[in-house]
Amino acid sequence: MTDRYRHTDLIDCTTTLFQRAGLDENIAQTVSEILVEAELLGYGTHGLQFVPAYIAGIESGRTATTGEPAILKDTPGALLLDARRLPGQWVVVRALDLALKRLADNGVICVAIRGSENISCLATYVKRAAARGVMAVLTTSSPGNAAVAPFGGRAPRYSTNPIAIGIPTDGTPILIDTSTSSTTNRMIERTRRSGSRLAREWLVDNTGRPSDDPEAFYTDPPGAIMPAGAPDQGHKGFAFAILVEALTSGLAGVGRADGLAAVGSNMFLQLIDPRAFGGLEAFRRETGFFAEHCRNTQPLDPDAPVRMPGDRAVAFYDEQCVSGVALHPEVLPRMKPFFEKYDVPLPTPIAS
Amino acid sequence: MTDRYRHTDLIDCTTTLFQRAGLDENIAQTVSEILVEAELLGYGTHGLQFVPAYIAGIESGRTATTGEPAILKDTPGALLLDARRLPGQWVVVRALDLALKRLADNGVICVAIRGSENISCLATYVKRAAARGVMAVLTTSSPGNAAVAPFGGRAPRYSTNPIAIGIPTDGTPILIDTSTSSTTNRMIERTRRSGSRLAREWLVDNTGRPSDDPEAFYTDPPGAIMPAGAPDQGHKGFAFAILVEALTSGLAGVGRADGLAAVGSNMFLQLIDPRAFGGLEAFRRETGFFAEHCRNTQPLDPDAPVRMPGDRAVAFYDEQCVSGVALHPEVLPRMKPFFEKYDVPLPTPIAS
Repeated sequence: MTDRYRHTDLIDCTTTLFQRAGLDENIAQTVSEILVEAELLGYGTHGLQFVPAYIAGIESGRTATTGEPAILKDTPGALLLDARRLPGQWVVVRALDLALKRLADNGVICVAIRGSENISCLATYVKRAAARGVMAVLTTSSPGNAAVAPFGGRAPRYSTNPIAIGIPTDGTPILIDTSTSSTTNRMIERTRRSGSRLAREWLVDNTGRPSDDPEAFYTDPPGAIMPAGAPDQGHKGFAFAILVEALTSGLAGVGRADGLAAVGSNMFLQLIDPRAFGGLEAFRRETGFFAEHCRNTQPLDPDAPVRMPGDRAVAFYDEQCVSGVALHPEVLPRMKPFFEKYDVPLPTPIAS
Repeated sequence: MTDRYRHTDLIDCTTTLFQRAGLDENIAQTVSEILVEAELLGYGTHGLQFVPAYIAGIESGRTATTGEPAILKDTPGALLLDARRLPGQWVVVRALDLALKRLADNGVICVAIRGSENISCLATYVKRAAARGVMAVLTTSSPGNAAVAPFGGRAPRYSTNPIAIGIPTDGTPILIDTSTSSTTNRMIERTRRSGSRLAREWLVDNTGRPSDDPEAFYTDPPGAIMPAGAPDQGHKGFAFAILVEALTSGLAGVGRADGLAAVGSNMFLQLIDPRAFGGLEAFRRETGFFAEHCRNTQPLDPDAPVRMPGDRAVAFYDEQCVSGVALHPEVLPRMKPFFEKYDVPLPTPIAS
């Protein structure tokens, strides 16, 4: 059986680690909370496994360790922030705080953010908004990264451009967190490490042929991920990836046009208050009805009932809050040298 | 060779037709302009072919013929409108006017609209916004229609939930107009009429098997369209369809939960002013660079260069403004009885 860890223990020890590495206490706390929330939701690929990379960013001086994102532009419904290479978790949580404060007066707030460090699991942030009865959209792109080919093309041009959407309902909140590409860098890496093939031909190799071989991604010149929906529906994944580019780098006003090394990640956060439209109760009734209506659809596979996005994550969250977090076996061993270096005790598993 | 018609002639005669059928002049004019703009953009399936249905709506008293959408709720960044069953073209154009007026003060405006008649071609509206240097998102759902199955389900639960996005660039604007389903009602109808098969297995029949047979959609109980990206990426199409449901019926506060006959179409329109973020010039530079970067990607098929969404539509538009609109051969014959009934001369083709 996998060891389980109390999520509060994981937050505490990771906070101490980040603090000793140089992050301000409140920043260290926020980064740790979001990483552990990703674990609670079952997004192990976007949780504590980032700790070594984040420590490296702090140690190298690339990641800012103190301060706030700077407000570059401010109108009632729109904010432009410079993340100043602060940890992305801190930046988004601060943006969320800012936007929530203004939401009641304005109904809708959009925040474009330039130059952030990694933000890990997008679902964690929109979940926080949904818990307050607010609909949220969060998206990010990495102008320095090119992994996905445009529809009909064979070379990488943009990042996997994920979108997360949090939707309150009168039951379980709907939590969407999905890339606009057929697969992700992380899935390709993992498949390569295991020596297997992708489930479908989600890649195009550098000769222009569809491929399920992860090695096709690492050639010179490189292959590329195809947009979500490829082959026949790839124009749709491409369309949503373009939306992300416009919302992130377009609104931030800095991105691929400015050269690769210029920027970190750009982000776009939008909050929508149902109270400013038909009301929160009516919103929850409609979204809750729709969710139930979908869940109650006869499934293709009798053993696989229709789920709404977020159903599984919320169930993981609730279960792991009680029974402890089941970490992927790779995570603690990878973190161990950093705990030792900064003289922080490793978390101890819950007695089973 | 197909006959060509001057677009201004088409607008004039259709305006006269709608007026004689009962629409106020300014409403008749706006509906006609949008339908002909759809033709100019090459969206013949969402243009003048709607005229017979619209006349039927007016004659039956279902479609309102005069007045304005009612403002039900009004905060600086958010508007809730009741379309009062007015023609959708009039409703969206009025919403666009309202939103554009407030945009400079607020940076972002969102408008939720309940109870509209059909809005035809979504791309026409976002094109108008993009021409003013404004990014626009427009989406709609029809609570009375169920055509698409949730991911993993086999029965229809929601409409094809299209999204249009207009993005200004420093060159050709990007115009996205796509359903969140694998195919559309209209494509299935057309394929059925021609006695052929769909290009892929975009349907699921009522026994739960994937199908390319349009007849599978019309059985009792009916089959369903699968979400965009199905089979392996269908959760992504489903996710974006859920987003549309939340933005339209959720914010409107009326929809599927209220019974099928209660409402017409619900809509959501968002305008984003790049001037309130990193500036219009920077926005256009980023989006224009990205578009060119994609177009210059080596194509999968040497004879099919990578296109951005809207490239073909804008080329059609420019060409047909000069050389006249090439109507689908079915369109004028279907309109003819209505022109005769209301004693409006049919448009005459341009001498070739």
